[in-house]
Amino acid sequence: MKAAVLAGGAGTRLYPITAYVPKSLIPIGSHYVIEYILEYLKHYDVRDIVMLISEKESDLLRNHLGDGKRFAVNIEYSVAERIGTAGAIGAAAGLLGDRFLVYYGDVLTDMNLTDMIEFHERSRATCTIAMSTSVPMEYGVARVAEDGRVTYFEEKPIIKEYPVSMGILICEKEVIRYCKPDTDISHEVVPQLIKDGKPVFAYLTSKRHYDIGTFKNLEEAKTLVEQSKGAFQLS
Amino acid sequence: MKAAVLAGGAGTRLYPITAYVPKSLIPIGSHYVIEYILEYLKHYDVRDIVMLISEKESDLLRNHLGDGKRFAVNIEYSVAERIGTAGAIGAAAGLLGDRFLVYYGDVLTDMNLTDMIEFHERSRATCTIAMSTSVPMEYGVARVAEDGRVTYFEEKPIIKEYPVSMGILICEKEVIRYCKPDTDISHEVVPQLIKDGKPVFAYLTSKRHYDIGTFKNLEEAKTLVEQSKGAFQLS
Amino acid sequence: MKAAVLAGGAGTRLYPITAYVPKSLIPIGSHYVIEYILEYLKHYDVRDIVMLISEKESDLLRNHLGDGKRFAVNIEYSVAERIGTAGAIGAAAGLLGDRFLVYYGDVLTDMNLTDMIEFHERSRATCTIAMSTSVPMEYGVARVAEDGRVTYFEEKPIIKEYPVSMGILICEKEVIRYCKPDTDISHEVVPQLIKDGKPVFAYLTSKRHYDIGTFKNLEEAKTLVEQSKGAFQLS
Amino acid sequence: MKAAVLAGGAGTRLYPITAYVPKSLIPIGSHYVIEYILEYLKHYDVRDIVMLISEKESDLLRNHLGDGKRFAVNIEYSVAERIGTAGAIGAAAGLLGDRFLVYYGDVLTDMNLTDMIEFHERSRATCTIAMSTSVPMEYGVARVAEDGRVTYFEEKPIIKEYPVSMGILICEKEVIRYCKPDTDISHEVVPQLIKDGKPVFAYLTSKRHYDIGTFKNLEEAKTLVEQSKGAFQLS
Repeated sequence: MKAAVLAGGAGTRLYPITAYVPKSLIPIGSHYVIEYILEYLKHYDVRDIVMLISEKESDLLRNHLGDGKRFAVNIEYSVAERIGTAGAIGAAAGLLGDRFLVYYGDVLTDMNLTDMIEFHERSRATCTIAMSTSVPMEYGVARVAEDGRVTYFEEKPIIKEYPVSMGILICEKEVIRYCKPDTDISHEVVPQLIKDGKPVFAYLTSKRHYDIGTFKNLEEAKTLVEQSKGAFQLS
Repeated sequence: MKAAVLAGGAGTRLYPITAYVPKSLIPIGSHYVIEYILEYLKHYDVRDIVMLISEKESDLLRNHLGDGKRFAVNIEYSVAERIGTAGAIGAAAGLLGDRFLVYYGDVLTDMNLTDMIEFHERSRATCTIAMSTSVPMEYGVARVAEDGRVTYFEEKPIIKEYPVSMGILICEKEVIRYCKPDTDISHEVVPQLIKDGKPVFAYLTSKRHYDIGTFKNLEEAKTLVEQSKGAFQLS
Repeated sequence: MKAAVLAGGAGTRLYPITAYVPKSLIPIGSHYVIEYILEYLKHYDVRDIVMLISEKESDLLRNHLGDGKRFAVNIEYSVAERIGTAGAIGAAAGLLGDRFLVYYGDVLTDMNLTDMIEFHERSRATCTIAMSTSVPMEYGVARVAEDGRVTYFEEKPIIKEYPVSMGILICEKEVIRYCKPDTDISHEVVPQLIKDGKPVFAYLTSKRHYDIGTFKNLEEAKTLVEQSKGAFQLS
Repeated sequence: MKAAVLAGGAGTRLYPITAYVPKSLIPIGSHYVIEYILEYLKHYDVRDIVMLISEKESDLLRNHLGDGKRFAVNIEYSVAERIGTAGAIGAAAGLLGDRFLVYYGDVLTDMNLTDMIEFHERSRATCTIAMSTSVPMEYGVARVAEDGRVTYFEEKPIIKEYPVSMGILICEKEVIRYCKPDTDISHEVVPQLIKDGKPVFAYLTSKRHYDIGTFKNLEEAKTLVEQSKGAFQLS
């Protein structure tokens, strides 16, 4: 199974860092974000990787990662400009096989990917989404009775009945048909698959992910990596 | 009714701007965040304001706002260091009356405050929390059947059954007793009030707020203010 | 004598702060840069001030400073877009009198302005430039003998024979004629005045200035203001 | 001849970028600053490189550069904490030979290094400093007659009689004796060598360097690299 790593995002939330450094090449401890991702994928025996990038970071990423040999993986590149995550996947269709992993390039996790793959196969899913039951909401939320009385209030709670998408999906080839220019895999493709009655499954995990797309998360990820002395153990 | 404006936060998510400018003194269009807040409170006839601040921004805020006359309000100051939002309210107890508004100093909204006050009185609440039913979550979320099948998936959805706290509360004097050093009004005080069976109510509104604590929200608020040609209309 | 304060610069060296806050409204201690400048000018009895600004910061500056009464000065505004410092002065000609001070809006100093004015009058100068003999160069420099041997080397030296312009000039009305669109007072106007044989004088001072246009200088100015407990004493 | 590359600086002027990325690992076009430096040194057949670094960036640099084979050079590392540039050189004395190059890790240039080495040998210098006659000063400067009249004024001029140190020096082993903890090669060592009558020479060049230590210079360097289509040609 090949992995399509989404690494072309603008990184506006990490501005001004991302004016100088692409998000996937921000260092955390001894390694760059993308190197942790390659290490993670390799650990789970996913060694054929397609980097979905934009022109802006193309030269630097190619120089840094090359064909992947240095990291004991095979890397191909697919360059597309601002056509959405699904658009980028569609544009890379020729490089992807019958089944492929979609991995958001700003996500770090130590979720068990082998487990997720087995779950996907067992479920005969068209698309399986890794979903965490351990990610807190950003806000204070309440449950409110008819008369307005608050029966429950929690600041930044984990809401068990709403697990959170971690930015890791396994897709069967069929999904490609849905990946049109200017569409997003989460905003449009997954909801449409469900609407069309395709078997979309959630791989639920109590592991969490770190989307390093914000300074707060980036700091958290740095702290975790330091505490684990550079090893890739985020939880 | 007096308003206690929480303006002592560190603003880490707006770093490095906040290394040079306190969050409440960031400009948006023609005015500073705190000036919009004063304007908002005055519009709803809340003219007695206690700024809860820390030493760091004390001189600058006092120089900027003075006693409030320039803005046709009365401003007092209460300085306390890193003792939590509820701690700061407790420390200012002597300046607050029998009923007071708590207003987070990084929040902009055009929610109808008169309406909320009337609701608070009608409900005979000890504490009423303004809660928006229009704030999207930061993540993709799903509902998942027993077998793992996804029956619903939405990226950054508004979840109606979980309205979001806007950082505006009306409190009866009784709440002060709960405001001990190193506690937070949302994390500790509100949940404890509910636990103790006090009447805590939610004032539900379809209006939303902008917490300018992140660059993304700050940009959104700037755009909205520009579109409304500088007037204070956020939605 | 009126003062023309150049406050329309883009502030690129203070980026990303200046994406959110105009340079002249950056706080240093208890006051904003422009407030220190107004205080300085008022101290030397220069109370009629023309702010040379661009559209971008116009609303915020007008809201902040108003007509100047709050600061016991009179403030007028002249808005012009990217036409250079001399261009902006030329565009404001109607607001300036027979003699005017040009003051760079990112400069703090405690040079004796009365002294400089007296020197200007005594010299019967068309233009007098405040020049400091206490500003170190940014580099390591050497004096080199014919054969290449270094006879003197100093890192970041003060070079006495090359005093440094502080961004404060006194001009007679005649200078206006030289202030054409897209010209700079330092790059073009002063050299041309000299070329034309006009009496251009240097007011030499051992006081230095802080151009808060860079983070390094901004930090230095902040430290100095803190050490002097908020009073405006930079040296 | 080995090269000692000073890569342990704090990079405060490039803050906040350098809170996340060491200065030598900032990307410019397709490559990182340090990769351009390695390429430059290799081009002039300097292939034995000692990186003088601090603990903070040690793991990341070692991971990125390794033993240098990937770049066809040999890299060793010397870790020392905040003991000055000369202190760091002194601490690495055992790794350096009878003659060594000192190269500031934030400097890019295309000065002819072979020429400089030949000049050094011909001059029988103890220390040769690369000095540019093409670097403009940061300020407006004047020459002033006895009576205060300005005879010359130029904004950001190149001052021919004061060439500027580029951060590249060739040193004979003897220099090591001067490299004590908490001393700087430019501030203390070079002036002391001159004082002691040692033959210190300037290699004068009309080529300039880019010290990417500031945003302005970093932007300039980026523009130059883009214009030269990624090749290492800065002038």
